[in-house]
Amino acid sequence: MSSSWGERFRISIFGGSHTEAIGVNIEGLPPGEPLDWEQLLAQMARRAPGQDPTSTTRKEADQPRVLCGLLDGVTTGAPLCAIIENTNQRSKDYSQLKTLPRPGHADYTAQVKYGGYQDVRGGGHFSGRLTAPLVFAGAVARQLLARRGVTVGAHVRKIAGYKGEDRPFDPVGLSPALLERLSGEYFPVIDPAVRQGMRGAIEEARMAQNSAGGLVECAILGLPAGMGDPMFGGAENRIASLVFGIPAVKGLSFGAGFRVAEMLGSENNDPFYMDEAGQIKTRTNHAGGILGGITSGMPLIFSAAFKPTPSISREQDTVDLQAGTNAKLRVTGRHDPCIVPRAAVALEAAACIAAVELLAQSGKL
Amino acid sequence: MSSSWGERFRISIFGGSHTEAIGVNIEGLPPGEPLDWEQLLAQMARRAPGQDPTSTTRKEADQPRVLCGLLDGVTTGAPLCAIIENTNQRSKDYSQLKTLPRPGHADYTAQVKYGGYQDVRGGGHFSGRLTAPLVFAGAVARQLLARRGVTVGAHVRKIAGYKGEDRPFDPVGLSPALLERLSGEYFPVIDPAVRQGMRGAIEEARMAQNSAGGLVECAILGLPAGMGDPMFGGAENRIASLVFGIPAVKGLSFGAGFRVAEMLGSENNDPFYMDEAGQIKTRTNHAGGILGGITSGMPLIFSAAFKPTPSISREQDTVDLQAGTNAKLRVTGRHDPCIVPRAAVALEAAACIAAVELLAQSGKL
Amino acid sequence: MSSSWGERFRISIFGGSHTEAIGVNIEGLPPGEPLDWEQLLAQMARRAPGQDPTSTTRKEADQPRVLCGLLDGVTTGAPLCAIIENTNQRSKDYSQLKTLPRPGHADYTAQVKYGGYQDVRGGGHFSGRLTAPLVFAGAVARQLLARRGVTVGAHVRKIAGYKGEDRPFDPVGLSPALLERLSGEYFPVIDPAVRQGMRGAIEEARMAQNSAGGLVECAILGLPAGMGDPMFGGAENRIASLVFGIPAVKGLSFGAGFRVAEMLGSENNDPFYMDEAGQIKTRTNHAGGILGGITSGMPLIFSAAFKPTPSISREQDTVDLQAGTNAKLRVTGRHDPCIVPRAAVALEAAACIAAVELLAQSGKL
Amino acid sequence: MSSSWGERFRISIFGGSHTEAIGVNIEGLPPGEPLDWEQLLAQMARRAPGQDPTSTTRKEADQPRVLCGLLDGVTTGAPLCAIIENTNQRSKDYSQLKTLPRPGHADYTAQVKYGGYQDVRGGGHFSGRLTAPLVFAGAVARQLLARRGVTVGAHVRKIAGYKGEDRPFDPVGLSPALLERLSGEYFPVIDPAVRQGMRGAIEEARMAQNSAGGLVECAILGLPAGMGDPMFGGAENRIASLVFGIPAVKGLSFGAGFRVAEMLGSENNDPFYMDEAGQIKTRTNHAGGILGGITSGMPLIFSAAFKPTPSISREQDTVDLQAGTNAKLRVTGRHDPCIVPRAAVALEAAACIAAVELLAQSGKL
Repeated sequence: MSSSWGERFRISIFGGSHTEAIGVNIEGLPPGEPLDWEQLLAQMARRAPGQDPTSTTRKEADQPRVLCGLLDGVTTGAPLCAIIENTNQRSKDYSQLKTLPRPGHADYTAQVKYGGYQDVRGGGHFSGRLTAPLVFAGAVARQLLARRGVTVGAHVRKIAGYKGEDRPFDPVGLSPALLERLSGEYFPVIDPAVRQGMRGAIEEARMAQNSAGGLVECAILGLPAGMGDPMFGGAENRIASLVFGIPAVKGLSFGAGFRVAEMLGSENNDPFYMDEAGQIKTRTNHAGGILGGITSGMPLIFSAAFKPTPSISREQDTVDLQAGTNAKLRVTGRHDPCIVPRAAVALEAAACIAAVELLAQSGKL
Repeated sequence: MSSSWGERFRISIFGGSHTEAIGVNIEGLPPGEPLDWEQLLAQMARRAPGQDPTSTTRKEADQPRVLCGLLDGVTTGAPLCAIIENTNQRSKDYSQLKTLPRPGHADYTAQVKYGGYQDVRGGGHFSGRLTAPLVFAGAVARQLLARRGVTVGAHVRKIAGYKGEDRPFDPVGLSPALLERLSGEYFPVIDPAVRQGMRGAIEEARMAQNSAGGLVECAILGLPAGMGDPMFGGAENRIASLVFGIPAVKGLSFGAGFRVAEMLGSENNDPFYMDEAGQIKTRTNHAGGILGGITSGMPLIFSAAFKPTPSISREQDTVDLQAGTNAKLRVTGRHDPCIVPRAAVALEAAACIAAVELLAQSGKL
Repeated sequence: MSSSWGERFRISIFGGSHTEAIGVNIEGLPPGEPLDWEQLLAQMARRAPGQDPTSTTRKEADQPRVLCGLLDGVTTGAPLCAIIENTNQRSKDYSQLKTLPRPGHADYTAQVKYGGYQDVRGGGHFSGRLTAPLVFAGAVARQLLARRGVTVGAHVRKIAGYKGEDRPFDPVGLSPALLERLSGEYFPVIDPAVRQGMRGAIEEARMAQNSAGGLVECAILGLPAGMGDPMFGGAENRIASLVFGIPAVKGLSFGAGFRVAEMLGSENNDPFYMDEAGQIKTRTNHAGGILGGITSGMPLIFSAAFKPTPSISREQDTVDLQAGTNAKLRVTGRHDPCIVPRAAVALEAAACIAAVELLAQSGKL
Repeated sequence: MSSSWGERFRISIFGGSHTEAIGVNIEGLPPGEPLDWEQLLAQMARRAPGQDPTSTTRKEADQPRVLCGLLDGVTTGAPLCAIIENTNQRSKDYSQLKTLPRPGHADYTAQVKYGGYQDVRGGGHFSGRLTAPLVFAGAVARQLLARRGVTVGAHVRKIAGYKGEDRPFDPVGLSPALLERLSGEYFPVIDPAVRQGMRGAIEEARMAQNSAGGLVECAILGLPAGMGDPMFGGAENRIASLVFGIPAVKGLSFGAGFRVAEMLGSENNDPFYMDEAGQIKTRTNHAGGILGGITSGMPLIFSAAFKPTPSISREQDTVDLQAGTNAKLRVTGRHDPCIVPRAAVALEAAACIAAVELLAQSGKL
């Protein structure tokens, strides 16, 4: 089912931008896991719009309500369903989308697939708003991980138009402390000094009635070696099938990523060694912590490319699906000029969910 | 299950490099599909080693035998299982792998996961040899697609060390004829003139006891608009969960891929227009034919980065898992210095399988 | 996932007897299906307690609220999630269940499985109350079926202690009109005259601080021949995997059911014939409309045996899980002396859901 | 997929009565499990035809060949695929089945579903011969179970026409020794004295050009309490979805089965008590070892009703699908007059497979 993911730790996301509520049903939670409500809200807040000067001015409460699966704040082992009421809906803004599909958006393909019955209001089930329940599920997963020594964090590596240095994670020396810091930030970056420059690039795009893409890198620390399965059950496959469900992702790579295409074996191979504690490690980590689909115990690192949000207010060419003619479109409504900082939160959530699934698949949950 | 893929058109791959046989069980084949045996063998031959001067000198017959699912060359609708006997096995070459894991290979992670019970001979279930049944299943899928107007082809875009121009597909004007040509080649490239240069780079790596990574681009033409599902059932998700099952893939991108991270909305958005025949198209195709996870009817294009094969014969650092010490390793045996040309065939196979699944999911098979 | 069912039409049930709300998420609904709200409520009312003189005196509003998936009463093709708030909770009644497990109930096995973290209030996720979202999903499915000429109905065949005649469906001549009548009744029986006798048997059990089991027969009319798949995807398998999810079901049979064990081939085989309209039918229908797992076009008929509800107020032997001793238990609280009439509604719902899945699997939805 | 079963321990069965080979691919086997080949063959022999005087005279070698997944007789953790060549095929016997469908068989429904492309030879993929790979997989599972203290056995309770006493398992006092004895017999019965009478009833059916149905009861001993999941993942659901995949099963019940419909709560409830060793047990076992879908630690017991094999040689009414007329049919070829003794072996196999899945689901494998 396309809005569900996972075999052992399964999330099912429902709702649309303007439905009464959105939410997520989580199956496969082990019993006896206390959930810290403040930490859940903190993660929800990071994703919520209006938190960062660069994001949209819409204000969404994003207050989750847990319907079941918790008793006195502790998981019961039964499905946990949480919903978020949609309170701030301006449906009129979107009335033309069925006729004039926005370039770069799912309007046209949804129209073909659903024959006009799809909910177009605010993008419907394709809306970036659906990352709210994803982030909720990720925040639940994160608490399970923390109890098992696993840390997850992401940072914005690039914003289109920002000319500063691209500073990736240190794939070998990456510390849990850095990930913990990043996972508390609204616009997570390794070097806080670049944040202002990135915000500047976003602001520039907004001023130009435009939007900006970007690159986010994410890491999982503390996963034991041996998680994941061969072939189609590899850590890469599982993460990919989840991450491409975040709107706007058009590329995903692990470790050295696309650079491997330009490397020789002697450069790319990560030599094993035994550290002083007798632990097996690799001196480099081009593999991004995954060999043959299975975790090596080194930092698991991946990067996702996010396209610029397609909703820009400058005039664009499109077609009139009713008239059957070419047409011009000017998108109105409030839209983020750059969803990348909030997408980083969604990417972390996906990483948390995938990590729990990997642990569960290996009987380590 | 990690060695199986697909919900409606399901492949289950079994075997290892040195088991008695390898094979694939295909479920979900519609009844009444004639399969052309020569075409199946032609695809198998493209992947088989020893076909191109740059590949390994091992000769594997790769002669598939269909056990069931076909009657007089036509599918019955029951599962089709095909096996390939492993005839040319030199098990002695691999005796040290359990003790001295090869850098960049699954030897170490498999050892951790399977506690030493894994079949290490030739890489066991992690061997690139397992792409043979994948290619068989892809060749079956390709014939279903051809009958429905869908064409699949891939080309080698980059080989590590090759300095020539990187020429991608024309994402808008791509023709079925080009894909058909490519899907018949042993070392598929858009411009045959570059093949020699790429072979030179591979030969150079071999001479240096090294190996070379590379980049392959793949396209699917003729998929109708409306295939794929939102969120985790998107065309990208499904393709990704399959493609990362091909050994050595470390990155995957759709359309403009990682370049979207550096683009503005006005650049990346593909404007819609209506062509003379009244068909809705886009003037550019940065989306790679997928919007919101659903096909737009434009060419579906993706690229996969393959790391250099980790088995190189120069000395490398590793650990001795039995002695618990650091160690040196010199990999012996016959290994491709570059698996990229053969990986292109596997990537096409994955594209064919994913395309059939997309059609089946949408009730179009 | 254990609280989800279906591959193409998937229901995920969440909640417990005393959680804030219970509900169901439905995935795989085709777009463009209008849902009649009154009909949905009518089915919910049939299952709700307090409707029949023989049922518990608890009053549950059972008012569903659709959070998403509908737009102006028509399905959008996105997941439809509906919840029912739990308003009438008396948690104190159940305080002893963790210590003194009720014989015949899941108290003990849940305690072992969930280590004491399970929600014991009112049976938690094991409560018969969870048939409310099942009935909701079934009522949705029923409307899809009606539009495709498929009718579903069930009747109470036996109540423990009732001595009257056991009158099953006519497996050949069964009419849609009868099923339609039954599917509107609170205590569905073929011959209304027996209802009073059955109620008497139930009342007798109640007076004796006891409970009564029963047998329900269910039929699906109008499913075309050819639905279902061989082996584990047969119509029987799919129905069984769903029906055993209804609490208290201990047996399930199709067509002549357990009587086939005492039949000879010449008796059991249903001879084919061609009727005047050229339709292929069978003169008898011991097969219950299923041959080789695939529907034959004859009425699909199955029966489910429901055990007496285990919550009886007379004293019973049990163990004290905390003290580690044998103990006596007297169950308090309000309990149905017989859930069979309401279970018939749940069984119909399961049949509706299974029928939609069968149609979807065969591309007929 | 309809010919596959299981989430954690997955079997995929392929082939047909007259294809080149049949087989099973087993995924999810833990690594490091030694498999005793003689024990595997012993189980295969129990199911093979021609072993008992009452079965068909066909002789099938049923010699399995393991293609992969084993190394020196020990599982590697990779998929284990085993095939059985079909050597003794007389295809001519079945030529008329496409035109004149056999009453009670899948000929007609398969014709509708597969549009005439199905393999009709010997019943194709619907053939009882497909229980051979099921029994192979079950025999593998049985060895895993034995190592974990779990025993499985079945016995023939009824044969149509046999008038002797119906003696079920003692649901409380059932011993592993009895199950072990039964699981080694060709025609397993609790009291060897009844075997001759049952054989007589079968012989009588054969003499009358007829066939006989029967009832088989199966038990699993040694499963710990706490296996299985609520709702649709219950032990009953899982077993049912597998057992209805054995040809001819028309009914399935657990514990007291359909008798619960005639019981009062005070009769049906199994009182808990603590035995001398401090173990929690029930004094009766009407629940068949399952409460709320979860094992209680008591013997898990179920019964399956098998219809008489539909292939009888006396003249029957059918239709001529080509001529579109009513017709007469006389089935030729060699057919068992009663498949029940061999079906008992298949039922045991299903129980073994389901038990391994239950353990795997609970992380106990």
